[in-house]
Amino acid sequence: MKYCSECGSSRLERRLQGHDTHYRMFCGECDKVFYHNPKMIAGCIVEHEGKFLMCQRAINPRPGSWTLPAGFMECGETVEEAAVREVWEETGARVEIVAPYSLFSVPQIDEVYIMFRARLLEFTDQPGPETAEARLLAPEEIPWENIFYPAIKDILQRYIAEYNKSSFGMYLGCSQEGTVHFAH
Amino acid sequence: MKYCSECGSSRLERRLQGHDTHYRMFCGECDKVFYHNPKMIAGCIVEHEGKFLMCQRAINPRPGSWTLPAGFMECGETVEEAAVREVWEETGARVEIVAPYSLFSVPQIDEVYIMFRARLLEFTDQPGPETAEARLLAPEEIPWENIFYPAIKDILQRYIAEYNKSSFGMYLGCSQEGTVHFAH
Repeated sequence: MKYCSECGSSRLERRLQGHDTHYRMFCGECDKVFYHNPKMIAGCIVEHEGKFLMCQRAINPRPGSWTLPAGFMECGETVEEAAVREVWEETGARVEIVAPYSLFSVPQIDEVYIMFRARLLEFTDQPGPETAEARLLAPEEIPWENIFYPAIKDILQRYIAEYNKSSFGMYLGCSQEGTVHFAH
Repeated sequence: MKYCSECGSSRLERRLQGHDTHYRMFCGECDKVFYHNPKMIAGCIVEHEGKFLMCQRAINPRPGSWTLPAGFMECGETVEEAAVREVWEETGARVEIVAPYSLFSVPQIDEVYIMFRARLLEFTDQPGPETAEARLLAPEEIPWENIFYPAIKDILQRYIAEYNKSSFGMYLGCSQEGTVHFAH
Protein backbone atom coordinates (compact mmCIF):
# COMPACT_ATOMS: atom_id res chain seq x y z
CA MET A 1 0.00 0.00 0.00
CA LYS A 2 1.61 3.27 -1.17
CA TYR A 3 -1.29 5.72 -1.65
CA CYS A 4 -4.41 6.62 0.30
CA SER A 5 -7.43 5.11 -1.46
CA GLU A 6 -9.61 8.03 -0.32
CA CYS A 7 -7.54 11.13 -1.17
CA GLY A 8 -4.63 9.75 -3.24
CA SER A 9 -1.96 11.11 -0.89
CA SER A 10 1.30 9.18 -0.44
CA ARG A 11 1.68 10.40 3.16
CA LEU A 12 0.88 7.07 4.79
CA GLU A 13 2.02 6.37 8.34
CA ARG A 14 1.65 3.71 11.03
CA ARG A 15 0.15 4.93 14.30
CA LEU A 16 -1.33 3.68 17.54
CA GLN A 17 -4.31 5.92 18.09
CA GLY A 18 -6.77 6.53 20.92
CA HIS A 19 -7.80 3.37 22.75
CA ASP A 20 -6.77 1.09 19.90
CA THR A 21 -4.59 -1.86 20.90
CA HIS A 22 -3.01 -2.31 17.44
CA TYR A 23 -0.93 -0.11 15.18
CA ARG A 24 -2.84 0.87 12.02
CA MET A 25 -1.97 2.46 8.72
CA PHE A 26 -3.31 6.03 8.52
CA CYS A 27 -3.36 8.67 5.82
CA GLY A 28 -1.36 11.65 7.07
CA GLU A 29 -3.39 13.91 4.78
CA CYS A 30 -7.06 12.96 5.30
CA ASP A 31 -6.63 10.82 8.46
CA LYS A 32 -8.38 7.76 7.02
CA VAL A 33 -7.49 4.54 8.85
CA PHE A 34 -6.87 1.32 6.91
CA TYR A 35 -7.73 -1.90 8.67
CA HIS A 36 -6.43 -5.26 7.55
CA ASN A 37 -8.28 -8.32 8.73
CA PRO A 38 -7.96 -12.07 8.25
CA LYS A 39 -9.89 -13.73 5.43
CA MET A 40 -12.23 -16.66 5.69
CA ILE A 41 -12.10 -19.74 3.51
CA ALA A 42 -15.19 -21.95 3.52
CA GLY A 43 -15.60 -25.46 2.18
CA CYS A 44 -17.18 -28.85 2.71
CA ILE A 45 -16.44 -32.47 3.40
CA VAL A 46 -19.05 -34.27 1.30
CA GLU A 47 -19.53 -37.95 2.01
CA HIS A 48 -21.73 -40.07 -0.27
CA GLU A 49 -22.11 -43.83 0.13
CA GLY A 50 -18.74 -44.12 1.84
CA LYS A 51 -16.93 -41.98 -0.73
CA PHE A 52 -15.56 -38.47 -0.30
CA LEU A 53 -15.76 -35.58 -2.74
CA MET A 54 -12.35 -34.25 -3.76
CA CYS A 55 -11.01 -32.10 -6.55
CA GLN A 56 -7.73 -31.92 -8.41
CA ARG A 57 -6.47 -28.38 -8.87
CA ALA A 58 -6.03 -27.10 -12.45
CA ILE A 59 -4.48 -23.77 -11.44
CA ASN A 60 -1.76 -22.29 -9.26
CA PRO A 61 -0.82 -22.86 -6.54
CA ARG A 62 -0.11 -26.62 -6.72
CA PRO A 63 -1.80 -27.67 -9.95
CA GLY A 64 -2.27 -31.45 -10.02
CA SER A 65 -2.64 -31.76 -6.25
CA TRP A 66 -5.90 -32.93 -4.67
CA THR A 67 -7.88 -31.12 -2.03
CA LEU A 68 -11.31 -30.62 -0.48
CA PRO A 69 -13.46 -28.01 -2.25
CA ALA A 70 -13.09 -24.67 -0.46
CA GLY A 71 -12.45 -21.02 -1.26
CA PHE A 72 -12.64 -17.42 -0.12
CA MET A 73 -15.91 -16.26 1.37
CA GLU A 74 -17.33 -13.27 -0.54
CA CYS A 75 -19.19 -10.22 0.74
CA GLY A 76 -22.97 -10.54 0.84
CA GLU A 77 -23.13 -14.24 1.66
CA THR A 78 -23.20 -16.38 4.80
CA VAL A 79 -20.37 -18.79 5.61
CA GLU A 80 -22.66 -21.69 4.72
CA GLU A 81 -23.59 -20.12 1.38
CA ALA A 82 -19.89 -19.58 0.64
CA ALA A 83 -19.12 -23.23 1.38
CA VAL A 84 -21.98 -24.51 -0.82
CA ARG A 85 -21.01 -22.13 -3.66
CA GLU A 86 -17.36 -23.19 -3.54
CA VAL A 87 -18.31 -26.86 -3.73
CA TRP A 88 -20.49 -26.11 -6.74
CA GLU A 89 -17.79 -24.06 -8.49
CA GLU A 90 -14.96 -26.48 -7.80
CA THR A 91 -16.68 -29.84 -8.21
CA GLY A 92 -20.00 -29.33 -10.01
CA ALA A 93 -21.79 -30.89 -7.02
CA ARG A 94 -24.84 -29.45 -5.32
CA VAL A 95 -24.77 -30.06 -1.58
CA GLU A 96 -26.55 -29.06 1.60
CA ILE A 97 -24.85 -28.24 4.89
CA VAL A 98 -25.20 -30.72 7.76
CA ALA A 99 -23.06 -29.12 10.48
CA PRO A 100 -19.80 -27.23 11.01
CA TYR A 101 -16.87 -29.57 11.36
CA SER A 102 -13.60 -27.68 11.57
CA LEU A 103 -12.37 -24.20 12.43
CA PHE A 104 -8.72 -23.84 11.52
CA SER A 105 -6.56 -20.70 11.74
CA VAL A 106 -3.42 -20.03 9.72
CA PRO A 107 -2.12 -16.84 11.37
CA GLN A 108 1.06 -16.70 9.26
CA ILE A 109 -1.05 -15.83 6.21
CA ASP A 110 -4.09 -14.38 8.01
CA GLU A 111 -6.56 -17.03 6.90
CA VAL A 112 -9.24 -18.98 8.73
CA TYR A 113 -10.66 -22.21 7.27
CA ILE A 114 -14.21 -23.22 8.13
CA MET A 115 -15.15 -26.67 6.86
CA PHE A 116 -18.66 -28.11 7.04
CA ARG A 117 -20.04 -31.61 6.79
CA ALA A 118 -22.39 -31.65 3.80
CA ARG A 119 -24.79 -34.01 2.04
CA LEU A 120 -24.65 -34.61 -1.71
CA LEU A 121 -27.80 -33.58 -3.59
CA GLU A 122 -26.57 -33.85 -7.19
CA PHE A 123 -23.20 -34.52 -8.82
CA THR A 124 -23.07 -33.13 -12.34
CA ASP A 125 -19.39 -33.95 -12.84
CA GLN A 126 -18.98 -30.53 -14.51
CA PRO A 127 -16.47 -28.73 -12.32
CA GLY A 128 -15.39 -25.16 -13.00
CA PRO A 129 -12.19 -24.05 -14.72
CA GLU A 130 -10.10 -24.09 -11.54
CA THR A 131 -10.52 -27.86 -11.29
CA ALA A 132 -8.95 -30.54 -13.49
CA GLU A 133 -11.10 -33.33 -12.10
CA ALA A 134 -13.68 -33.81 -9.34
CA ARG A 135 -14.36 -37.29 -7.97
CA LEU A 136 -16.03 -39.20 -5.19
CA LEU A 137 -13.21 -41.31 -3.76
CA ALA A 138 -13.26 -44.26 -1.38
CA PRO A 139 -10.69 -43.88 1.44
CA GLU A 140 -8.33 -46.34 -0.29
CA GLU A 141 -8.59 -44.36 -3.56
CA ILE A 142 -7.67 -41.00 -2.00
CA PRO A 143 -4.25 -39.80 -3.27
CA TRP A 144 -2.98 -39.12 0.25
CA GLU A 145 0.55 -38.33 -0.93
CA ASN A 146 -0.78 -35.75 -3.38
CA ILE A 147 -2.73 -33.63 -0.88
CA PHE A 148 -0.54 -30.60 -0.44
CA TYR A 149 -2.01 -28.98 2.65
CA PRO A 150 -1.32 -30.97 5.86
CA ALA A 151 -4.39 -29.44 7.52
CA ILE A 152 -6.66 -30.76 4.76
CA LYS A 153 -5.12 -34.23 4.98
CA ASP A 154 -5.49 -34.18 8.75
CA ILE A 155 -9.14 -33.06 8.69
CA LEU A 156 -10.03 -35.70 6.09
CA GLN A 157 -8.28 -38.50 7.98
CA ARG A 158 -10.08 -37.57 11.20
CA TYR A 159 -13.38 -37.29 9.38
CA ILE A 160 -13.03 -40.78 7.87
CA ALA A 161 -12.11 -42.24 11.27
CA GLU A 162 -15.18 -40.59 12.79
CA TYR A 163 -17.38 -41.63 9.87
CA ASN A 164 -16.43 -45.23 10.53
CA LYS A 165 -17.60 -44.76 14.13
CA SER A 166 -20.65 -42.64 13.12
CA SER A 167 -19.73 -40.00 15.69
CA PHE A 168 -18.58 -36.54 14.69
CA GLY A 169 -16.77 -33.95 16.80
CA MET A 170 -15.85 -30.39 16.01
CA TYR A 171 -12.21 -29.43 15.51
CA LEU A 172 -10.38 -26.30 16.44
CA GLY A 173 -6.92 -26.00 15.07
CA CYS A 174 -3.99 -23.86 14.12
CA SER A 175 -1.27 -24.54 11.61
CA GLN A 176 1.38 -23.84 14.25
CA GLU A 177 0.04 -26.06 17.00
CA GLY A 178 -1.63 -28.94 15.18
CA THR A 179 -5.30 -29.76 15.38
CA VAL A 180 -7.10 -30.08 18.68
CA HIS A 181 -10.20 -32.21 19.11
CA PHE A 182 -13.23 -31.03 21.05
CA ALA A 183 -15.81 -33.72 21.53
CA HIS A 184 -19.40 -32.66 22.10
CA MET B 1 -12.42 3.89 -2.67
CA LYS B 2 -11.35 6.60 -5.13
CA TYR B 3 -7.64 6.00 -5.79
CA CYS B 4 -5.47 2.96 -6.43
CA SER B 5 -3.44 2.22 -3.28
CA GLU B 6 -0.57 0.90 -5.40
CA CYS B 7 -0.07 3.57 -8.08
CA GLY B 8 -2.32 6.46 -6.93
CA SER B 9 -4.37 6.49 -10.16
CA SER B 10 -8.05 7.46 -10.02
CA ARG B 11 -8.88 5.20 -13.00
CA LEU B 12 -10.73 2.57 -10.96
CA GLU B 13 -13.21 0.27 -12.66
CA ARG B 14 -15.39 -2.75 -11.88
CA ARG B 15 -14.70 -5.82 -14.02
CA LEU B 16 -15.40 -9.52 -14.24
CA GLN B 17 -12.09 -11.02 -15.23
CA GLY B 18 -10.89 -14.45 -16.34
CA HIS B 19 -12.53 -17.32 -14.47
CA ASP B 20 -13.60 -15.15 -11.56
CA THR B 21 -17.24 -15.50 -10.53
CA HIS B 22 -17.48 -12.05 -8.93
CA TYR B 23 -17.02 -8.49 -10.17
CA ARG B 24 -13.94 -6.85 -8.64
CA MET B 25 -12.56 -3.35 -8.44
CA PHE B 26 -9.47 -2.97 -10.67
CA CYS B 27 -7.00 -0.18 -11.28
CA GLY B 28 -7.25 0.77 -14.95
CA GLU B 29 -3.66 2.03 -14.81
CA CYS B 30 -1.62 -0.71 -13.08
CA ASP B 31 -4.24 -3.51 -13.20
CA LYS B 32 -4.17 -4.21 -9.46
CA VAL B 33 -7.29 -5.99 -8.22
CA PHE B 34 -8.91 -5.01 -4.92
CA TYR B 35 -10.71 -7.75 -3.03
CA HIS B 36 -13.21 -7.05 -0.28
CA ASN B 37 -13.94 -9.86 2.13
CA PRO B 38 -16.11 -10.32 5.20
CA LYS B 39 -14.64 -9.68 8.63
CA MET B 40 -14.60 -12.00 11.57
CA ILE B 41 -15.69 -11.08 15.08
CA ALA B 42 -14.61 -13.43 17.87
CA GLY B 43 -15.82 -13.58 21.44
CA CYS B 44 -16.73 -15.82 24.36
CA ILE B 45 -19.54 -16.94 26.58
CA VAL B 46 -17.86 -17.25 29.97
CA GLU B 47 -19.81 -19.10 32.64
CA HIS B 48 -18.56 -19.14 36.24
CA GLU B 49 -20.53 -20.70 39.09
CA GLY B 50 -23.81 -20.23 37.27
CA LYS B 51 -23.09 -16.61 36.32
CA PHE B 52 -22.30 -15.22 32.88
CA LEU B 53 -19.70 -12.61 31.97
CA MET B 54 -21.17 -9.55 30.28
CA CYS B 55 -20.00 -6.02 29.61
CA GLN B 56 -21.74 -2.68 29.31
CA ARG B 57 -20.53 -0.62 26.37
CA ALA B 58 -18.93 2.76 27.09
CA ILE B 59 -18.56 3.76 23.43
CA ASN B 60 -20.54 3.98 20.20
CA PRO B 61 -22.51 2.24 18.89
CA ARG B 62 -25.09 1.74 21.67
CA PRO B 63 -23.29 3.03 24.78
CA GLY B 64 -25.02 1.76 27.91
CA SER B 65 -26.21 -1.47 26.30
CA TRP B 66 -24.97 -4.85 27.53
CA THR B 67 -23.37 -7.53 25.41
CA LEU B 68 -21.04 -10.51 25.40
CA PRO B 69 -17.35 -9.63 25.02
CA ALA B 70 -16.36 -9.88 21.34
CA GLY B 71 -14.51 -7.90 18.70
CA PHE B 72 -12.74 -7.90 15.36
CA MET B 73 -10.14 -10.59 14.79
CA GLU B 74 -6.73 -9.08 13.96
CA CYS B 75 -4.07 -10.28 11.55
CA GLY B 76 -1.44 -12.58 13.03
CA GLU B 77 -3.68 -14.32 15.54
CA THR B 78 -5.90 -17.41 15.62
CA VAL B 79 -9.66 -17.10 16.09
CA GLU B 80 -9.26 -18.49 19.61
CA GLU B 81 -6.53 -15.97 20.44
CA ALA B 82 -8.75 -13.17 19.13
CA ALA B 83 -11.65 -14.32 21.33
CA VAL B 84 -9.46 -14.56 24.46
CA ARG B 85 -7.88 -11.15 23.75
CA GLU B 86 -11.25 -9.48 23.27
CA VAL B 87 -12.55 -10.89 26.56
CA TRP B 88 -9.44 -9.54 28.30
CA GLU B 89 -9.72 -6.09 26.69
CA GLU B 90 -13.45 -5.72 27.23
CA THR B 91 -13.91 -7.28 30.66
CA GLY B 92 -10.49 -7.62 32.35
CA ALA B 93 -11.06 -11.37 32.62
CA ARG B 94 -8.53 -14.02 31.66
CA VAL B 95 -10.21 -17.06 30.15
CA GLU B 96 -9.40 -20.26 28.31
CA ILE B 97 -11.35 -21.64 25.38
CA VAL B 98 -13.46 -24.77 25.93
CA ALA B 99 -15.10 -25.24 22.50
CA PRO B 100 -16.68 -23.32 19.64
CA TYR B 101 -20.34 -22.57 20.29
CA SER B 102 -21.80 -20.39 17.59
CA LEU B 103 -21.06 -19.40 13.99
CA PHE B 104 -23.29 -16.56 12.93
CA SER B 105 -23.24 -14.64 9.63
CA VAL B 106 -24.53 -11.12 9.07
CA PRO B 107 -24.27 -10.80 5.28
CA GLN B 108 -25.87 -7.33 5.19
CA ILE B 109 -22.75 -5.89 6.83
CA ASP B 110 -20.25 -8.60 5.79
CA GLU B 111 -19.52 -9.85 9.29
CA VAL B 112 -19.21 -13.34 10.78
CA TYR B 113 -19.47 -13.87 14.55
CA ILE B 114 -17.66 -16.83 16.10
CA MET B 115 -18.44 -17.30 19.79
CA PHE B 116 -16.69 -19.82 22.02
CA ARG B 117 -17.51 -21.36 25.34
CA ALA B 118 -14.75 -20.36 27.75
CA ARG B 119 -13.66 -20.99 31.34
CA LEU B 120 -12.81 -18.15 33.72
CA LEU B 121 -9.23 -18.17 35.00
CA GLU B 122 -9.06 -14.74 36.65
CA PHE B 123 -11.41 -11.77 36.87
CA THR B 124 -9.52 -8.55 37.58
CA ASP B 125 -12.58 -6.33 37.21
CA GLN B 126 -10.40 -3.86 35.28
CA PRO B 127 -12.04 -3.66 31.87
CA GLY B 128 -10.60 -1.55 29.07
CA PRO B 129 -11.79 1.91 28.02
CA GLU B 130 -14.49 0.57 25.65
CA THR B 131 -16.38 -0.90 28.61
CA ALA B 132 -18.30 0.98 31.31
CA GLU B 133 -18.73 -2.09 33.50
CA ALA B 134 -18.02 -5.82 33.32
CA ARG B 135 -19.93 -8.23 35.56
CA LEU B 136 -20.69 -11.86 36.18
CA LEU B 137 -24.48 -11.97 36.11
CA ALA B 138 -26.92 -14.68 37.19
CA PRO B 139 -29.60 -15.33 34.54
CA GLU B 140 -32.18 -13.34 36.53
CA GLU B 141 -29.77 -10.38 36.79
CA ILE B 142 -29.08 -10.14 33.04
CA PRO B 143 -30.55 -6.91 31.59
CA TRP B 144 -32.33 -8.75 28.78
CA GLU B 145 -34.13 -5.62 27.57
CA ASN B 146 -30.85 -3.74 27.30
CA ILE B 147 -29.06 -6.21 24.99
CA PHE B 148 -29.16 -4.49 21.64
CA TYR B 149 -28.21 -7.29 19.26
CA PRO B 150 -30.94 -9.95 18.91
CA ALA B 151 -28.34 -12.56 17.90
CA ILE B 152 -26.41 -12.03 21.16
CA LYS B 153 -29.59 -12.30 23.22
CA ASP B 154 -30.59 -15.44 21.33
CA ILE B 155 -27.20 -17.13 21.76
CA LEU B 156 -27.09 -16.32 25.48
CA GLN B 157 -30.65 -17.59 26.08
CA ARG B 158 -29.88 -20.85 24.29
CA TYR B 159 -26.62 -21.22 26.16
CA ILE B 160 -28.31 -20.81 29.54
CA ALA B 161 -30.99 -23.34 28.59
CA GLU B 162 -28.27 -25.80 27.56
CA TYR B 163 -26.19 -25.03 30.65
CA ASN B 164 -29.16 -26.01 32.80
CA LYS B 165 -29.26 -29.34 30.93
CA SER B 166 -25.42 -29.69 30.87
CA SER B 167 -25.51 -30.45 27.13
CA PHE B 168 -24.10 -28.06 24.57
CA GLY B 169 -24.73 -27.98 20.83
CA MET B 170 -23.15 -25.87 18.15
CA TYR B 171 -25.16 -23.16 16.40
CA LEU B 172 -25.12 -22.00 12.85
CA GLY B 173 -27.09 -18.91 12.14
CA CYS B 174 -27.76 -15.92 9.96
CA SER B 175 -29.34 -12.59 10.86
CA GLN B 176 -31.86 -12.99 8.05
CA GLU B 177 -33.04 -16.50 8.77
CA GLY B 178 -32.77 -16.82 12.53
CA THR B 179 -30.54 -19.26 14.32
CA VAL B 180 -30.50 -22.94 13.43
CA HIS B 181 -29.50 -25.58 15.92
CA PHE B 182 -27.25 -28.49 15.04
CA ALA B 183 -26.99 -31.03 17.81
CA HIS B 184 -23.91 -33.22 17.92
